[in-house]
Amino acid sequence: MKNKSKKISKTSEERRESLARLLQEQGLKIYSELDRGEFPKFSVPSRSVSNIVYDKKLRQYVLGNTASIRSARNMSQLRSFAQLIWLAFFANRLVQEKKSSTLRDIYYSSQAFSIDFEDQPESDNIIVDLEAVLARPREDLHIFPEERSSVFGDLTIEYTVPGYEGKRTNLSDHPDGYLIGPSLSSAELVDTSAELVIAIEKGGLFTRFVEEKIDKKFKAIIVDTAGQAPRATRYLLKRLHNEMGLPVVILTDGDVYGEHIAMVIKSGSANAAHLRELTVPDAKWIGVWATDIEKYKLPTIPMTESDIKRIYDLQKDPRYQEGIWKKELEVFLKIKRKAELEAFSKYGLTNITDKYLPEKLEIAKSL
Amino acid sequence: MKNKSKKISKTSEERRESLARLLQEQGLKIYSELDRGEFPKFSVPSRSVSNIVYDKKLRQYVLGNTASIRSARNMSQLRSFAQLIWLAFFANRLVQEKKSSTLRDIYYSSQAFSIDFEDQPESDNIIVDLEAVLARPREDLHIFPEERSSVFGDLTIEYTVPGYEGKRTNLSDHPDGYLIGPSLSSAELVDTSAELVIAIEKGGLFTRFVEEKIDKKFKAIIVDTAGQAPRATRYLLKRLHNEMGLPVVILTDGDVYGEHIAMVIKSGSANAAHLRELTVPDAKWIGVWATDIEKYKLPTIPMTESDIKRIYDLQKDPRYQEGIWKKELEVFLKIKRKAELEAFSKYGLTNITDKYLPEKLEIAKSL
Repeated sequence: MKNKSKKISKTSEERRESLARLLQEQGLKIYSELDRGEFPKFSVPSRSVSNIVYDKKLRQYVLGNTASIRSARNMSQLRSFAQLIWLAFFANRLVQEKKSSTLRDIYYSSQAFSIDFEDQPESDNIIVDLEAVLARPREDLHIFPEERSSVFGDLTIEYTVPGYEGKRTNLSDHPDGYLIGPSLSSAELVDTSAELVIAIEKGGLFTRFVEEKIDKKFKAIIVDTAGQAPRATRYLLKRLHNEMGLPVVILTDGDVYGEHIAMVIKSGSANAAHLRELTVPDAKWIGVWATDIEKYKLPTIPMTESDIKRIYDLQKDPRYQEGIWKKELEVFLKIKRKAELEAFSKYGLTNITDKYLPEKLEIAKSL
Repeated sequence: MKNKSKKISKTSEERRESLARLLQEQGLKIYSELDRGEFPKFSVPSRSVSNIVYDKKLRQYVLGNTASIRSARNMSQLRSFAQLIWLAFFANRLVQEKKSSTLRDIYYSSQAFSIDFEDQPESDNIIVDLEAVLARPREDLHIFPEERSSVFGDLTIEYTVPGYEGKRTNLSDHPDGYLIGPSLSSAELVDTSAELVIAIEKGGLFTRFVEEKIDKKFKAIIVDTAGQAPRATRYLLKRLHNEMGLPVVILTDGDVYGEHIAMVIKSGSANAAHLRELTVPDAKWIGVWATDIEKYKLPTIPMTESDIKRIYDLQKDPRYQEGIWKKELEVFLKIKRKAELEAFSKYGLTNITDKYLPEKLEIAKSL
């Protein structure tokens, strides 16, 4: 069993209490402003491009120090001020009642209170504002997205959701994998014999890895990111790394989107620069690299115009200025071809697990 | 415990053996044609529109009696003949070795054998040809799609996949739900206390239903179809109905696409007219109906041009000529507005489970 080294997640109850305190502080501040005869206001960290900077020490994007005041005094801010107040009230209720919700639910729930959102993007945006105000992810507010990915391997968890408190499950019991939903996200990570986490972009390969017993052969927990990893998945990866002390490696398709899927797991997205819970700066992208395409003689597909444009975009990103991140982008641009994980099937269905994976895990040690 | 009434799924081992026999028969036929000095050939049931008919007794689309001969004698058929032979060979190997695969894997695997597919759609199409030749779904050939939905409730299953033979799991153990992948699809359904299956279109609502203990309150197994139900999900629904004797009800968004999601669960799609394993003719669509939109005063969204076009299309479909199917299409067309399942959140997050669901389950009894 791994020692729980740096526990980032408090227990579910601790998280709930600390969040309730944060919400209460915001509420008290507004009450006291009203008592003093002032217009109530929020200080909302700015999420404009000019306030998003790459923090080399944290190895992720963070917000700078610019914050804007959203005040009931300002007619043009009154609408979004009221929306934000309502959302804080509603989130508080979700947390108190231990009910979960979705972005879409929030949009419709607002109508019960005659809170006017033009459309869902407007309410989604206010949810991000509240995340920024509290510096806490919306998952802590019990607001979950629809998208789900999955996990498999020897990891024992203990649920904290109502009706399941104290119940334990081992995530190798269902070979199709366990959905990473609200219950798994809020569970305690109790015990594992694994020494590694392998995140993989595609469900079909995830199933192959389970079938080929990669969990046992490489003492690994396998995570299907199902494309761009949803936030709950990135949160789990961070917890597996920090709490269970497991290294995280990432396998994606061999294209610019795959490379960026790995980068987002490693260092987050500009969209979530106001949060710290979603990055694994030590995670390693082990393939499929552009240089692997030739090395393993993989069947390829020509890049599209938008693939190439995406490479030029990423070359401006501060995180792509060195190491394999820079080099592989350059090679992609040179060969103008891409290859999928399934391309290894040309050499037999288990070529990827028998040959490619062990070789890349060996290389990963020196990354 | 429900009696296993009409068991449609043989045990995994029986399915494997009967499929191996089918493949062997095809192989032997080709060998004996070659021995007789004839060009080898397949008889492939035609999947052209003119050969797809609605079978009122089976209550699903089926293929008519037209079959075409695909022969090695005919130069224009030689390519697809060779592809089909190779696929039968490869599928046989998957089944013998108990390995699973995806549509995309098959496309790449062909390259190892210098079998020429222009692109994946061409290989996907040959897979459907083989399904039609054998009258067996590709899942029996161990070829699975990427898409996954999930299930939750008191259902004990027994796995048959390698390494898990005889192991049992109860599908109420993980409150985020169990992925419906190859292992669950091939598992034996052992025992349930449930008296009903509720299929629901959206993951967010699925989570709500689990949180609100709908499985216990209504003795239900809850299935998230995640939009249009994947084939593995429809197969599970059919098995729950036939083997465990459970009625199936379906909840979708209140729009023409939701109505059709329910219809496809009930009576299949024209694309799968060559199969019988994917329909639940007794399944009932209980909402959200067009008539519910006014009755429950739901927030609505205006229909798009393509929504309206879709209604006109479905009005030509023989399955939409009577009952609620016909009526609700007419009402949708009249009101030209639609409502999502989340719209009930306007009246509180549990309005859909506390009020709407029980009312509609009551109405379902007379459908």
